[in-house]
Amino acid sequence: MSKGTVVLAYSGGLDTSCILVWLKEEGYDVITFLANIGQEEDFDAAKKKAESLGAKKVFIEDLRAEFVEEFIWPSVQASAIYEDRYLLGTSVARPCIARRQIQIARQEGAQYVSHGATGKGNDQIRFELTCYALYPEVKIIAPWRIPEFYNRFVGRKDLMEYAKKHGIPVPVTPKAPWSMDANLMHISYESGILENPKSHAPADLYLMTKSPEDAPNSPDVLEIEFKKGVPIKVTHIKEGKSKDTPLDIFSYLNEIGGRHGVGRIDIVENRFIGMKSRGIYETPGGTILYHAHLDIETFTLDREVRRIKQGLGVKFAEMLYNGFWYSPECEFVRHCIDKSQESVDGKVQLSVFKGQVYILGRESPKSLYNEELVRSLHSPLTPHQQ
Amino acid sequence: MSKGTVVLAYSGGLDTSCILVWLKEEGYDVITFLANIGQEEDFDAAKKKAESLGAKKVFIEDLRAEFVEEFIWPSVQASAIYEDRYLLGTSVARPCIARRQIQIARQEGAQYVSHGATGKGNDQIRFELTCYALYPEVKIIAPWRIPEFYNRFVGRKDLMEYAKKHGIPVPVTPKAPWSMDANLMHISYESGILENPKSHAPADLYLMTKSPEDAPNSPDVLEIEFKKGVPIKVTHIKEGKSKDTPLDIFSYLNEIGGRHGVGRIDIVENRFIGMKSRGIYETPGGTILYHAHLDIETFTLDREVRRIKQGLGVKFAEMLYNGFWYSPECEFVRHCIDKSQESVDGKVQLSVFKGQVYILGRESPKSLYNEELVRSLHSPLTPHQQ
Amino acid sequence: MSKGTVVLAYSGGLDTSCILVWLKEEGYDVITFLANIGQEEDFDAAKKKAESLGAKKVFIEDLRAEFVEEFIWPSVQASAIYEDRYLLGTSVARPCIARRQIQIARQEGAQYVSHGATGKGNDQIRFELTCYALYPEVKIIAPWRIPEFYNRFVGRKDLMEYAKKHGIPVPVTPKAPWSMDANLMHISYESGILENPKSHAPADLYLMTKSPEDAPNSPDVLEIEFKKGVPIKVTHIKEGKSKDTPLDIFSYLNEIGGRHGVGRIDIVENRFIGMKSRGIYETPGGTILYHAHLDIETFTLDREVRRIKQGLGVKFAEMLYNGFWYSPECEFVRHCIDKSQESVDGKVQLSVFKGQVYILGRESPKSLYNEELVRSLHSPLTPHQQ
Amino acid sequence: MSKGTVVLAYSGGLDTSCILVWLKEEGYDVITFLANIGQEEDFDAAKKKAESLGAKKVFIEDLRAEFVEEFIWPSVQASAIYEDRYLLGTSVARPCIARRQIQIARQEGAQYVSHGATGKGNDQIRFELTCYALYPEVKIIAPWRIPEFYNRFVGRKDLMEYAKKHGIPVPVTPKAPWSMDANLMHISYESGILENPKSHAPADLYLMTKSPEDAPNSPDVLEIEFKKGVPIKVTHIKEGKSKDTPLDIFSYLNEIGGRHGVGRIDIVENRFIGMKSRGIYETPGGTILYHAHLDIETFTLDREVRRIKQGLGVKFAEMLYNGFWYSPECEFVRHCIDKSQESVDGKVQLSVFKGQVYILGRESPKSLYNEELVRSLHSPLTPHQQ
Repeated sequence: MSKGTVVLAYSGGLDTSCILVWLKEEGYDVITFLANIGQEEDFDAAKKKAESLGAKKVFIEDLRAEFVEEFIWPSVQASAIYEDRYLLGTSVARPCIARRQIQIARQEGAQYVSHGATGKGNDQIRFELTCYALYPEVKIIAPWRIPEFYNRFVGRKDLMEYAKKHGIPVPVTPKAPWSMDANLMHISYESGILENPKSHAPADLYLMTKSPEDAPNSPDVLEIEFKKGVPIKVTHIKEGKSKDTPLDIFSYLNEIGGRHGVGRIDIVENRFIGMKSRGIYETPGGTILYHAHLDIETFTLDREVRRIKQGLGVKFAEMLYNGFWYSPECEFVRHCIDKSQESVDGKVQLSVFKGQVYILGRESPKSLYNEELVRSLHSPLTPHQQ
Repeated sequence: MSKGTVVLAYSGGLDTSCILVWLKEEGYDVITFLANIGQEEDFDAAKKKAESLGAKKVFIEDLRAEFVEEFIWPSVQASAIYEDRYLLGTSVARPCIARRQIQIARQEGAQYVSHGATGKGNDQIRFELTCYALYPEVKIIAPWRIPEFYNRFVGRKDLMEYAKKHGIPVPVTPKAPWSMDANLMHISYESGILENPKSHAPADLYLMTKSPEDAPNSPDVLEIEFKKGVPIKVTHIKEGKSKDTPLDIFSYLNEIGGRHGVGRIDIVENRFIGMKSRGIYETPGGTILYHAHLDIETFTLDREVRRIKQGLGVKFAEMLYNGFWYSPECEFVRHCIDKSQESVDGKVQLSVFKGQVYILGRESPKSLYNEELVRSLHSPLTPHQQ
Repeated sequence: MSKGTVVLAYSGGLDTSCILVWLKEEGYDVITFLANIGQEEDFDAAKKKAESLGAKKVFIEDLRAEFVEEFIWPSVQASAIYEDRYLLGTSVARPCIARRQIQIARQEGAQYVSHGATGKGNDQIRFELTCYALYPEVKIIAPWRIPEFYNRFVGRKDLMEYAKKHGIPVPVTPKAPWSMDANLMHISYESGILENPKSHAPADLYLMTKSPEDAPNSPDVLEIEFKKGVPIKVTHIKEGKSKDTPLDIFSYLNEIGGRHGVGRIDIVENRFIGMKSRGIYETPGGTILYHAHLDIETFTLDREVRRIKQGLGVKFAEMLYNGFWYSPECEFVRHCIDKSQESVDGKVQLSVFKGQVYILGRESPKSLYNEELVRSLHSPLTPHQQ
Repeated sequence: MSKGTVVLAYSGGLDTSCILVWLKEEGYDVITFLANIGQEEDFDAAKKKAESLGAKKVFIEDLRAEFVEEFIWPSVQASAIYEDRYLLGTSVARPCIARRQIQIARQEGAQYVSHGATGKGNDQIRFELTCYALYPEVKIIAPWRIPEFYNRFVGRKDLMEYAKKHGIPVPVTPKAPWSMDANLMHISYESGILENPKSHAPADLYLMTKSPEDAPNSPDVLEIEFKKGVPIKVTHIKEGKSKDTPLDIFSYLNEIGGRHGVGRIDIVENRFIGMKSRGIYETPGGTILYHAHLDIETFTLDREVRRIKQGLGVKFAEMLYNGFWYSPECEFVRHCIDKSQESVDGKVQLSVFKGQVYILGRESPKSLYNEELVRSLHSPLTPHQQ
């Protein structure tokens, strides 16, 4: 008799395939769930694989549009940036994925959810905080925290052997000497040869962005239009091309930013559990938006409102990083930030070139900028002052 | 009989030359003071000009070393940045200049100081706050706030006529269609054709940095060593060249940053008096240091200490922008920030290329980074997490 | 011909009576405005006096209900307290009064408003900031900042003489050796013999509260019910009496607090213009509400939401003190604080006795308090922990 | 053979006596440690009891003086108050006790420390954070988190039986229907019949303070002198009596405050682990000092420094509550707060009466109060303004 139904966050990779089989061995019915949040993935192959390994049901869900609108956009409004540098590409995807997993668990009457995150990282915390917030009675099976599991699989070799024994297809290409996490917003790289904070990252690491050295020798100039702090249209000035749905806008900014090598950072950050960790990120579209939003916001917001909002944005970034999207305080702060953006309307022109975003100009129907006043202050006689 | 002695902040330009003569007309003895804080200037010519216009004494003071050590370095420690973008190049020079002017006023027994700043900008406030803080009894003569003066000189033409009448040499080159302020840390450009926040800045505006488009096609790789949050050495990795005094370090970073077009921004900012103003800045060395310091700080500082320090840094930037360097609260905050930097020691390697600074790696004798712990968390099995 | 119409904030006292006449002398038509915000005043007498002195129109407006609902209630929600002690009784009345004065000015087509506040205090700033926010084109006549006026009236004697000359009735009772400001929320006392921060206040100073020494020897026990952070009912437990409109609730709390000597403080505070000032305040009802609200808020609010709200409340108190009620930032903060109070519902029981408020117990339909959980943690075995 | 040596925080009560014996049963050598931090206790009896139960060594340590100087004084400087009401009397004692326990463990070569705190309260966290901070290699034995222990002792009856079986003297007086924690700074009461947040506390609960109803009918007037934000002398104005060592000052303030029923609060607070808990506290001397310090601080500190310090104080209170006294961030914040207090010198006169503290006046050699300036602003003509 079944112990119950588990909805497993399934990636199609070796780890979660072994977990799928192991959960079945343990007596659970397993439903797999794989979210499409913009990562490169053969979703059909993953579906077939899960089915062949005995998943009772297989969900492959395209969450890209809601990821952009409901998660990335509020982060853009907040100018969310962790420790002054990291644009939170992995963090912001977690509540989006977990929310859908929980919806499936409820709809399928599953009492359990499971994930392949380790017992020491940020991810498990983010995932589980979301689950408990949205489905307080749910039980979480985290194999990498269960002794029976982690004592059995102490190295990759153990997983490989288990896979062979249970007919789980094993990867044919060798594993990269680092790990990565990819979605529409960014790719992150860490661990392996990147662990030594002193060693430089290999030049061929990056998948989303071209090297600035190989980027085109002339810029692309864009105009981004904002309404209430959120982009509603992007136009390529020369080509006249434009995009106006959230997913299209963000994808297009990724394309332009990627072509010019925008948004690469190499940082050491402080994890939730209090450890420092080195990570390399590429966030092309997100970086362009961060700069463009900052510009239109400063242009249209009252100074003091912006100052208070800035403090709330710092708090929001910490909550987001630590996995508290679905907490009373984060909902409160999102509400306040959204309120602050009521007048953040206008257009920013910018140039993207060789890894950098240059703001060129801005205009707004709601600007507090008073050109006439400025002119009177800058009479020909006026010496300079900032 | 003389009304007393005035120490006038003298630039050698048309405005302050007219003020010099006007002050004499008004019955004051005038001592001129011109600070060398790294701007391009013919100091000898300025000296002669002041003498020929009747200055009782002429002071030309090279403040570059103290500007770097006592003003720029604390700003680097603070990661001082105004409204998330402006590195405060003009603001940070003001207390340095005013301090020396006040020292001269005290030493020369002058009861007055004077400056050529307008009555509506940030500068007058910064200047005067410093004066009152350091010399509470001093009297300030601000001609651009005195009706007799500003009603007489309503346009540039009036100044030119006055100049001709009083033998003041007038500039032969036409005035640029914007105003600028230059020092070792940056050049700022504003007003004139830049006032319209929508219009793009002309390509030939910049004096301190090359256009990224024309910058070299290969990066320069530097190593910057920090002690207590302050750079003590910069080394060009390939060339082996290094610098180790504050002024040399900063000048060298300006050279490298300038060559690669680093540190250009085009922003609208909120002035102290509550108006928005468009400014364009280039801060090559300061931008490199901002990024390098951020990296070594995050690497070496406890997360929670950094978070508190970050809040203090935001306050410091506002105080600096608003001219409160010599205030009890700014002294308190500087003390706290300096204390926070006690363990910020180490080396950062970075690459400078086409307008951008890329952190490559870092090491520190005091790092809280625990590579062994990181490795144990990133076992081969470990999925990814930020 | 008239220079135009002025709406004068008129108190009926010597100062503003002289200003009324002086404004007429200067050629203005004068409309007087006197707000009833709960101070002891013979409003009829003031009306007749203004008319007899030539006011074109006389407005006496009872603003007590809107003062409580629209100004005091948001301050209660915010736990607004300046420098940890002052409940802002004068500050919170200012925007209420100025708003009505501006409404009258608009309705009567007056281009001017005038007030009797000095040129160095908080009040003029508060008043004028409100005027400009609500009626940007209005012109303000502040006689105590106009040399023609303040040079003519350098002492009280000058005012007295002017009064006699112009048939202005002069006060027959001698002036108290301090000044005071009274409204429904508090009375403040300052200046005169209170200026020396070391000297104790005279025992007979207080008008709103009995001395705790003379207060009843047994407490009054009240229950206050809150909805969204605002009191909706107060009940006297023993007497069964209850009040449920804002003005009645607040007046009743004043009565009970006043009887028991609640809410007296003697402080030195930092004024907006940067000077320290000694003030003595009595705020009976406001003090009871401050404590009751704090209790129900902590009981019903999520910890982290409360922490963020606490920071916003500190900012709100500063804005309120400095006169920025009608500013974009204060409106933003009020919105956020109001949002935070959505779940602040419940009843607090408290005892009022000899100058002190003692919270006795609380209950709420929305409490996050989980008695069962608490009990399980406090098993008979459990040692103690806070 | 012994498993090693444990230093046990021993109270002399039933719980920790059972733990002592249980630890011996488990094979450990047990050293008991009992700190005298001002609680009522028969220390001799406790010593004998521990010896009779087989403690290898017994430490009874009088920490009162260092508790006041090194822990309470910094909290006074910080105006440390948790959630606007709780003066942190239990929290501030924890690092003091744990520090000494760790010193003993190191000095006695013990690898283990143990405590009788439950697995769900604040105390265990505070205690253990201190231990790890000061002795990172130490191992902590927390019986109430060990299944073998807590499954054996599920009710008080089990402890009683165990006690009888092992010759542990059992308490003869019945247990109070609540639990309490006492030290020099305060007594707290919680759990049992106090758990219901609505029910009023019994009148005979309090041990440190008289009921305000029974307190004397005339006040005691004190003068407290501060130096760098710390009291250095207290004088009874009428009696002429004075105290000038930290322990004497604090004990005397407890005596006076206790006599007048000062410092009783009944609150619901948010615990570290996210639960709300009702607690009743009496903090007589601490409450007097809180008010006196606030007064002298506002009198002597620059407004903006105080505002920044206020924010740091809020953070400090949270750290203290959560057990982070010995953390990098708390050390940093204590340093900054101490720095802010450099000019907080002066004398405050206050009256203590019927549960309340009334500030009467203050003076300071370093005051920023400028009486002459104040007088000029309050000319006889001056209307009123706060």
